[in-house]
Amino acid sequence: MKIALLGGTGDIGAGLAIRLALLGHEIIVGSRKVEKAKSKCDEYAEIVKSRKENCKFCGMSNEDAADEAEVAFLTIPWKYVFSTIEGLKEHLKGKIVVSPVVPMDKVGKCFLYVPPETGSAAEQVADILKDSRVVAAFQTVPAAKFSDINATFDWDVPVCSDDDEAKKVVMDLVNQIEGLRALDAGPLSVSRMVESITPLLVNLMIRNKMKNLSVKFS
Amino acid sequence: MKIALLGGTGDIGAGLAIRLALLGHEIIVGSRKVEKAKSKCDEYAEIVKSRKENCKFCGMSNEDAADEAEVAFLTIPWKYVFSTIEGLKEHLKGKIVVSPVVPMDKVGKCFLYVPPETGSAAEQVADILKDSRVVAAFQTVPAAKFSDINATFDWDVPVCSDDDEAKKVVMDLVNQIEGLRALDAGPLSVSRMVESITPLLVNLMIRNKMKNLSVKFS
Repeated sequence: MKIALLGGTGDIGAGLAIRLALLGHEIIVGSRKVEKAKSKCDEYAEIVKSRKENCKFCGMSNEDAADEAEVAFLTIPWKYVFSTIEGLKEHLKGKIVVSPVVPMDKVGKCFLYVPPETGSAAEQVADILKDSRVVAAFQTVPAAKFSDINATFDWDVPVCSDDDEAKKVVMDLVNQIEGLRALDAGPLSVSRMVESITPLLVNLMIRNKMKNLSVKFS
Repeated sequence: MKIALLGGTGDIGAGLAIRLALLGHEIIVGSRKVEKAKSKCDEYAEIVKSRKENCKFCGMSNEDAADEAEVAFLTIPWKYVFSTIEGLKEHLKGKIVVSPVVPMDKVGKCFLYVPPETGSAAEQVADILKDSRVVAAFQTVPAAKFSDINATFDWDVPVCSDDDEAKKVVMDLVNQIEGLRALDAGPLSVSRMVESITPLLVNLMIRNKMKNLSVKFS
């Protein structure tokens, strides 16, 4: 499958690029700066080459990446995601768009979830990309451990969407990644309760001296 | 320790009564109806007697239970908790008050978190009980399995409070219960991110045909 990581030059983008490429997917890294996207692709290719030959990475502009993709991940820092996708509406028309976006701020001594007025980042994305098939997922996956090719884990990934077919495509992608289990969390409005787990994880890590926390439901 | 379960005649109250009594704590079940509290105590005593003799249960009014307690749990359905504690202010003065309260509603096909304007149920409780030491905990513990004396589990319990000493007392209580691990989640404002996990759990259970889900951070 052709998968675009828009703004996929860091953070959760790295882990998705590496792990999805190893599964045989074609990875398109999008960035405002094409050169940066290309150099990240070289980096990712270097990381995976000991495990698998001929992994496919390609760096281009966010617009071109969106045009090429079957599924596009919004791996963009939350403060820039809404303004960035305003300019990508036409390019993402009809496509499956995955939002791992979590709006959070440090308030006093702790991190708090600061959802937009629509209720959640994913709903805000859907409000902007009215002609895309928005799916919320991967919000609680810790970027550093996820991008470590030698790391193993056992995490759950709740997946929300108002488009059941698009949700199924993303749940299948999640389940292809060893150590992740996709769970159907319902419509997109439920994503606010998933997004808000992430600032909780940050608080738990800081206060209990833990690292790379994610979540398992049992 | 003298522990009151206000409105402790059902739901999460049953599990707390049974498990804390088995640990040697003195359990005071409070209810609007004293007779109901007393008959619940007989029920709880019957359940624990094969495991431990001389467990201490005592049923009384919510007011008397609050007066007697060192620690009081608000095991009251969320729609009634704020009005109920308005009448208990004086009785809960200076005491540690634990809020496992989760405000949620069914909206369309799913359950959503519906926090009060203060940000969370626990903050609303603290706003009403200005002279109590409010701690948020136990929101994500599934009542049915928790009250099954034969059930084993491995769950995390995030604990929030603006009162560090009170938080420590409650974290110690949590850690005394086999299968629970207390985690410091920070100040009371973080409780909104814990409370909102519960409606997510409900949605996950319904959609994935799972039962008694709670949460583990790893």
